[in-house]
Amino acid sequence: MIKELLEHIASPKDLRQLPKEELPQLANELRDFIIGIVAAKEGHLGASLGVVELTIALHYIFDTPNDFLVWDVGHQAYGHKILTGRKDVFETNRQLGGISGFPKRSESEYDAFGVGHSSTSISATLGMAIASQLKGELDKLHIAVIGDASIASGMAFEALNHVGVSKANILIILNDNAMGIDPSVGALKNYLTNIKNNKRVRKHNIIEAFNIDYSGPIDGHDLPALLSELERLKTVSGPKFLHIITTKGKGLQKAEEDQVKYHAPGKFNAKTGELIAKSELNQQPPKYQDVFGLTLVELAKTNDKIVGITPAMPTGSSLKFMLDQIPERAFDVGIAEQHAVTLAAGMATQGLIPFCNIYSTFLQRAYDQVIHDVAIQNLPVVFCLDRAGLVGEDGATHHGVFDLAYLRCIPNLIIFAPLNELELRNIMYTAQLGLKGPIAIRYPRGMGTMQNWQQPFSTLEIGKGETIKEGSKVAILSIGTIGNMIKDVYIDITNKGEIAHYNMRFVKPLDEELLHHVFKKFKNIITIEDGTIVGGFGSAVLEFAQQHGYKDKNIEILGIPDTFIEHGKSEELFNSIGLSVHNMKKILSLWT
Amino acid sequence: MIKELLEHIASPKDLRQLPKEELPQLANELRDFIIGIVAAKEGHLGASLGVVELTIALHYIFDTPNDFLVWDVGHQAYGHKILTGRKDVFETNRQLGGISGFPKRSESEYDAFGVGHSSTSISATLGMAIASQLKGELDKLHIAVIGDASIASGMAFEALNHVGVSKANILIILNDNAMGIDPSVGALKNYLTNIKNNKRVRKHNIIEAFNIDYSGPIDGHDLPALLSELERLKTVSGPKFLHIITTKGKGLQKAEEDQVKYHAPGKFNAKTGELIAKSELNQQPPKYQDVFGLTLVELAKTNDKIVGITPAMPTGSSLKFMLDQIPERAFDVGIAEQHAVTLAAGMATQGLIPFCNIYSTFLQRAYDQVIHDVAIQNLPVVFCLDRAGLVGEDGATHHGVFDLAYLRCIPNLIIFAPLNELELRNIMYTAQLGLKGPIAIRYPRGMGTMQNWQQPFSTLEIGKGETIKEGSKVAILSIGTIGNMIKDVYIDITNKGEIAHYNMRFVKPLDEELLHHVFKKFKNIITIEDGTIVGGFGSAVLEFAQQHGYKDKNIEILGIPDTFIEHGKSEELFNSIGLSVHNMKKILSLWT
Repeated sequence: MIKELLEHIASPKDLRQLPKEELPQLANELRDFIIGIVAAKEGHLGASLGVVELTIALHYIFDTPNDFLVWDVGHQAYGHKILTGRKDVFETNRQLGGISGFPKRSESEYDAFGVGHSSTSISATLGMAIASQLKGELDKLHIAVIGDASIASGMAFEALNHVGVSKANILIILNDNAMGIDPSVGALKNYLTNIKNNKRVRKHNIIEAFNIDYSGPIDGHDLPALLSELERLKTVSGPKFLHIITTKGKGLQKAEEDQVKYHAPGKFNAKTGELIAKSELNQQPPKYQDVFGLTLVELAKTNDKIVGITPAMPTGSSLKFMLDQIPERAFDVGIAEQHAVTLAAGMATQGLIPFCNIYSTFLQRAYDQVIHDVAIQNLPVVFCLDRAGLVGEDGATHHGVFDLAYLRCIPNLIIFAPLNELELRNIMYTAQLGLKGPIAIRYPRGMGTMQNWQQPFSTLEIGKGETIKEGSKVAILSIGTIGNMIKDVYIDITNKGEIAHYNMRFVKPLDEELLHHVFKKFKNIITIEDGTIVGGFGSAVLEFAQQHGYKDKNIEILGIPDTFIEHGKSEELFNSIGLSVHNMKKILSLWT
Repeated sequence: MIKELLEHIASPKDLRQLPKEELPQLANELRDFIIGIVAAKEGHLGASLGVVELTIALHYIFDTPNDFLVWDVGHQAYGHKILTGRKDVFETNRQLGGISGFPKRSESEYDAFGVGHSSTSISATLGMAIASQLKGELDKLHIAVIGDASIASGMAFEALNHVGVSKANILIILNDNAMGIDPSVGALKNYLTNIKNNKRVRKHNIIEAFNIDYSGPIDGHDLPALLSELERLKTVSGPKFLHIITTKGKGLQKAEEDQVKYHAPGKFNAKTGELIAKSELNQQPPKYQDVFGLTLVELAKTNDKIVGITPAMPTGSSLKFMLDQIPERAFDVGIAEQHAVTLAAGMATQGLIPFCNIYSTFLQRAYDQVIHDVAIQNLPVVFCLDRAGLVGEDGATHHGVFDLAYLRCIPNLIIFAPLNELELRNIMYTAQLGLKGPIAIRYPRGMGTMQNWQQPFSTLEIGKGETIKEGSKVAILSIGTIGNMIKDVYIDITNKGEIAHYNMRFVKPLDEELLHHVFKKFKNIITIEDGTIVGGFGSAVLEFAQQHGYKDKNIEILGIPDTFIEHGKSEELFNSIGLSVHNMKKILSLWT
């Protein structure tokens, strides 16, 4: 196909010049463009392919950016970015210095609200719509596009409850493809399926119960149908809701067939859709996710009190192994972090041992539940915080850098960060032996360092760190996997005998015995963590020193600075903030 | 009426010996007992009066504590406590060393789950029910009692979405009285009213959309009807939902007539319901809540960009003044902290200045939204965190002691704590002049210290503290209203010239100029705050000292220790943790 339409579209103004009849061709071109770039550069694929027609229709019918358009989560906004002036830079997507993988206010006036986490779009859009009302801008339309997995999350419901009593000029489009990253779950999903299949359920449905004008469901790939329905909705005042049915991955056969894998497939052949295998994959160390997922199955087979919980991330977290093998004790509760944590608390009251796996930034959604439902009652829930530290290309919304700070102030909670796969495995083993209270285990996205990680279990003593290396002049206290980088720092320097290295393992309780040893022996102490330096592990060490009257020390706190870190390869990001072998050597050279 | 039934009930076993015909008399006695004690000792009244019949019916029909009963929030559980062995200690309710005002696992086996914050009951109960399934205890029933205001909150919806695809033996009782602490709001409330008034809406309603067996609505004060319906529900397997209609404050005329005031009315005449006025009320300083509420109205009248938001606490926060006087710019969004924050973010994108008032512990519910929707985008939302610090009789679930720690790690956020009413007023004035990013203003529950607080506005410089008193030997750095206690410490000691006192005002950004002055001049430095000492203001000062190489100092960090603080009068609680004039003098005597 000759790409002749898309190349002339620098903004939605150009799009609106096209006759309607040419829009299907544009859809084909846009789809090919997305596939071509994501195939080579990686990124999120399926969600954007599913809304190509919707994206075109929205910008064609409505007066963006004067009308506001908010994409929930934002995985599906690639087409939107390409049509709104970012076609030429789209190949920099998710790269350091390039455009973000998510809509972002600072990037374009067409990105009405920055997104990344799920289910914020209705609240944000309603806020904008109320602002327009107060300004007397009554014609301005405010549009939220939200998936069926996201609308099932609590905050979307809270927003609908408010929308229904407002007179806001707001259009909520439910992009119903029965998928989040994994297949949608829950009663609402079944209900939506009923609506699709049963016209009688459509009237007096759950949306109309909220006093919101419902229309649909319509085929979200049928451009003429979309255009005419959106045109009609222009004339409807107040809150309105359009239910469209789409197919995630639409237009690339393999992506339609395996929607989970093609959510973010890595590199693939743009023509056939075949994935391009990473070289030597079998000889690489495993992902921490698989260490978690496989170890949990191993433990659960011998301990029938263990249950597994994930809020909608069975694939990402690798809880899928337990869901497959022990489905009666593994629960995907949907995008419902709050519910996941309190559900775990309820289970723990009855002697079960819940392993509740939540991404570090997503646990922010359930912070109150961790304090109020778990920690106050001192219930032995095992939180497994995936994607802690810098996550790379997903950027600021997804970096799990606040967890050590926000968890550390919670009484009763144990906080652990493994140095490697084996420590993750052994703390999971230890946690199911019968802790008296809750524990948070935080580990990063991606590969570790060990190939032979599947060793026999051993117990880790709670609150005990490990001396990796004694030394004479500088003590390095590391927490978590960043300790492996420290090993690379001193391995080839001549005066390495001067450098001591302690793997602290626990942020709470601190290993006070080890710290007394360090503070008695060393004048120069460096702490390093892949979390914020404000209130994190380093601060815990400062608090220890203050409480015990250690003075006159040179202490250096290394970690994530007090600013939001953008997207890019993790290694690039670590380099940019000085958490690199090179920079560490420079710091050490001043002190040794 | 002769109290002859209640005095013989030491546990639900005794209750179950009574013939059904005597239960209405027991209801009367129980109601009188609650009224009698709350009238004299204070506490929550209306909610418990509303569920007297339900409480009796539940314990009569079901096999508590083998069947599990979870009261959402727990304001309504006084009758439950009295019938389950705590009649004789009920007069110690909410007092130091006495029983808790909320259900609490450590207090009784009948309290299946500790509560305090809203909307946790369905998740917790489902967790227990799944545990019972796994254990093969299929006859055990798990009951959640939740109000209509609480079921409209997001996490309850998340739980319903899961309940509907489970086979759990769970009974959800919706106690529908159209009230939270204030009247319920939102589209769901209107929908529930429709159900009550329109039988046709009852079938295929929103609960059945979740695939949960719905029955009701029935009159929750009709004991025979309740008993027979609960008896019937015993035979229904799987998830079931009973909708009952009750009147908050039932049985005390004044409490029925003014349900907001009689939620927690303070002392009153048990016979007439007349409130007992506190003496000399007019000559007291105002509550911080009223300083907030009245100042907001004053500012909003001259600045039409100001909007006010509260999640269901218009009376408690005193946003009611703005809701009354400028209703088009004031929003009670229901128990929906997550939505409240992102709604504010959406409004801020359009140039509005949202004052989003949330209790300190309840902001834990919206932690992710503060980071993800406000701080990352650096939107100028003004968070007013009410009930920061120790709140007194509500106890561990409600103490706002984590905020400084969990907020301090968020980039872009300004954090301020006023010393007094005037500073609260002036920071509110300053915040609406046009900040470039978000600010959190945290202040305590209750009365301040100034009678003449309504002075002309002046601007507070961001990041600047105040020297209250210079000195020679010890520097005290205080944050927030606890600084007033410090003034009492040195006012009558002979060597007060040795004591310097700085009111830091901002936890972030710190007043570095003032801190350099302090660290250069003093060897002895005390920080004091009414928040946790783990990662709070004191830790911020330690981080400053480390960053700037100040060594060889004696630093003492005073604040809330790393443990959950129970209930009692605030003054008693402060004394118990050493935050008292007496203890401060003792510490200072060692140093001066």
